[in-house]
Amino acid sequence: MYATDNPSLTFHQSHADFLAGKDDPRAYLERCLDTIAQREDVVQAWVCINKEGARAAADQSSKRYKAGAPLSAIDGMPFGIKDMIETKDMPTQMGSAAFANNHTGRDSACIWALRDAGAIILGKTVTTELAILDPGPTTNPFDPQRTPGGSSSGTAAAVGAGMVPAAIGTQVIASGLRPASYCANWALKPSAGGIHRGEALDLSQSINSIHTNSALDLWNIAMAISTRVGGDPGYPGIYGRQNVPLAQQPARLALLQTEGWPKLDGAAKIAFENALQRLQAAGVEIVTRDESSEIEDLEQAIADATRLSLRIGAWEQRWITEYLAENHADKIGPHLMRHVRNARATTLAQYRHDLQARAHSRQCLSVLGRRYDAAISLCATGIAPITAEVKDSNTPTGDLSFGCPSSLLGAPAMNVPALALAGMPLGIQILGQQNQEERIVGISRWVHAALTGQ
Amino acid sequence: MYATDNPSLTFHQSHADFLAGKDDPRAYLERCLDTIAQREDVVQAWVCINKEGARAAADQSSKRYKAGAPLSAIDGMPFGIKDMIETKDMPTQMGSAAFANNHTGRDSACIWALRDAGAIILGKTVTTELAILDPGPTTNPFDPQRTPGGSSSGTAAAVGAGMVPAAIGTQVIASGLRPASYCANWALKPSAGGIHRGEALDLSQSINSIHTNSALDLWNIAMAISTRVGGDPGYPGIYGRQNVPLAQQPARLALLQTEGWPKLDGAAKIAFENALQRLQAAGVEIVTRDESSEIEDLEQAIADATRLSLRIGAWEQRWITEYLAENHADKIGPHLMRHVRNARATTLAQYRHDLQARAHSRQCLSVLGRRYDAAISLCATGIAPITAEVKDSNTPTGDLSFGCPSSLLGAPAMNVPALALAGMPLGIQILGQQNQEERIVGISRWVHAALTGQ
Repeated sequence: MYATDNPSLTFHQSHADFLAGKDDPRAYLERCLDTIAQREDVVQAWVCINKEGARAAADQSSKRYKAGAPLSAIDGMPFGIKDMIETKDMPTQMGSAAFANNHTGRDSACIWALRDAGAIILGKTVTTELAILDPGPTTNPFDPQRTPGGSSSGTAAAVGAGMVPAAIGTQVIASGLRPASYCANWALKPSAGGIHRGEALDLSQSINSIHTNSALDLWNIAMAISTRVGGDPGYPGIYGRQNVPLAQQPARLALLQTEGWPKLDGAAKIAFENALQRLQAAGVEIVTRDESSEIEDLEQAIADATRLSLRIGAWEQRWITEYLAENHADKIGPHLMRHVRNARATTLAQYRHDLQARAHSRQCLSVLGRRYDAAISLCATGIAPITAEVKDSNTPTGDLSFGCPSSLLGAPAMNVPALALAGMPLGIQILGQQNQEERIVGISRWVHAALTGQ
Repeated sequence: MYATDNPSLTFHQSHADFLAGKDDPRAYLERCLDTIAQREDVVQAWVCINKEGARAAADQSSKRYKAGAPLSAIDGMPFGIKDMIETKDMPTQMGSAAFANNHTGRDSACIWALRDAGAIILGKTVTTELAILDPGPTTNPFDPQRTPGGSSSGTAAAVGAGMVPAAIGTQVIASGLRPASYCANWALKPSAGGIHRGEALDLSQSINSIHTNSALDLWNIAMAISTRVGGDPGYPGIYGRQNVPLAQQPARLALLQTEGWPKLDGAAKIAFENALQRLQAAGVEIVTRDESSEIEDLEQAIADATRLSLRIGAWEQRWITEYLAENHADKIGPHLMRHVRNARATTLAQYRHDLQARAHSRQCLSVLGRRYDAAISLCATGIAPITAEVKDSNTPTGDLSFGCPSSLLGAPAMNVPALALAGMPLGIQILGQQNQEERIVGISRWVHAALTGQ
């Protein structure tokens, strides 16, 4: 399907073998380390790897399985963690020279929850500088000439390359869904506040994203975190039962064109429209902005989503970026510097206006909930672009347009790795109502099966 | 009025003298340092003081006034900062041995805003351990045998002792209003999200509080911060015009008894009821729970406010307190340890239930907005208790009941230093609707004038 074999490394398939004594988490980890050893030179997904710590944790996990008492469905699962998120045993360098060797000695909330569930924190994955736009060294695991996307570059690439079955990313604008599309991940960007962000609450649109090679692993991770540490302070966390939602055929989907539609690559548009026709043939009604004033209202409310989101974030981080500009001006990339200037150019009055616009867009989405099971879209304007062709543009890790609405709307959204084009992956986006993660996972499973036959 | 002379150190009175060249911020700072030198041995409000940094900043401010170009109405104002809030030039030790010498090198959002407005960050003020209950060494500036309250112990005491005209505290349950009542501060606990908390967003009910000796200084600070850095991410920040709201007589106030009423000290009850009679004599209608089902609904919704708030906070900080329990068990006080146990005993389902109860209480408050200008209450069950009599209790810095509803409700609330009893201050609480800081400051000014004749 893709240019390189997608090893589709999953964990749930091994879980039963662990319990049966045919395999164990230490051996699983060693297979991950082997893949990393084979591919990391080219992919460059990792900032650092804590091999010895991971081996010790895997051995503990192996003992628990041997005793028939794993801590959870993800006990022994090796994770890559985007290097924006604090881990007690590795530095949190945020892709920024200003944070070189930034050892905080602390686990972020979701990391604490993952370890409490028995998961193995294998290493930190490459992020763009401060999760904005200046890229790191990671290449796309399906074609090293292409970008893996960003800002969760290493997160998506490590999963796509089969180095680990799971990784945690973050998304403020399009940083989770877009790389997931480029790298063939199953990925969930939860509802606003859905996964506790621990120390990193400084952006109102930011969220931790979950990247895997299967819906089952994804759901197990979501539940393991949610039951242990919940969502952000003041939020209810991801709702759902422990078992992965079954594939569920939607009756009616709203097609979201977003501000990305005019920029949509011709081949991707054809592939997407072909996919929509196959879903329609299977009995799904798909409605566009031309056919529904409610969809048109939402499209208008998100027409400027990226600019609005960038400005909201710039204001919210003003006190941090000014600190960086004051103390580390020589270590700031050009895109981050533009972010600082954006912050200086905005005001409290503008921010309040933008919050109102955001609230209005969320209201428009909520109206759609009456009639549509979910919205369907893409996560990117096409397959991963060739790095050399975009590196000097305003979006050196690919266009943000399709990923952004889910963040502005605070809505849960999935990347479903269901399409391929020129040997490269292209994801379908399923976007739902706030706190309806369970529903969109079920719909995503059905869409994936309908489009891939798997 | 109080046991010791209340020096009522204010800043706005000097601002005109600075502009006229009769006084300057450096001289003002030196007078603050003199008072600290005289009183700190007994009051013990400060964890550390950056004299040289403050003098340098005061000299810069003096130059700006000389040039007729101060940066704001608070240019040159010396501040004490609760040692929960990060400052780039001093450690943030949080009253905890686990954070000894915790230099983060960074200013929190409101500190960045204060410096941008020309304010002088003089030092860090004592907090209880992690702003929970285990007290520090601070004594009440009006009677050293008594507690200053907490967790903003040093913040309230430094202002009450006339050491600085202003200080920043925090409140999650009753940590701002109660010490303000005990120490005769004008204090504002803003609406949920009203002042950007920077790095410290881990509690959904937490908020930075402003402590001063006058409504005018308080308002100037609120506006200086709000215009520069706004509220928490996703919140609109404190609304208002630059000028302090004029005293405004309310037509109708709801009397809030809260869960504190049965614990109310007899003398404090008489003093409060006497004050209410004087307000009624001035033409204010005051309505109680017995006379209004809407007030009764709210009283019932906040009847368990403290326990609810403690449980919400325990869950939200679980990942932090477990980290402390794992790594610094020997450095945790008994009240903090109880907080850890509270966290372990709660679940995501309980937390979601508690969030619903909190949302219901906020809805009940919002209903009151139709008919009442504000609510009136006390901030504590009486004057500051004698430390020896409470130190081994569950509330070693005084009872939390009257302060808590404002936090649960996310409502703005003022302590108005308008009463005295046995030579000790006793504050009146004015609590308003979300985002109506301007209105409650106006009402508070009128109440203060009506009760004190000032």
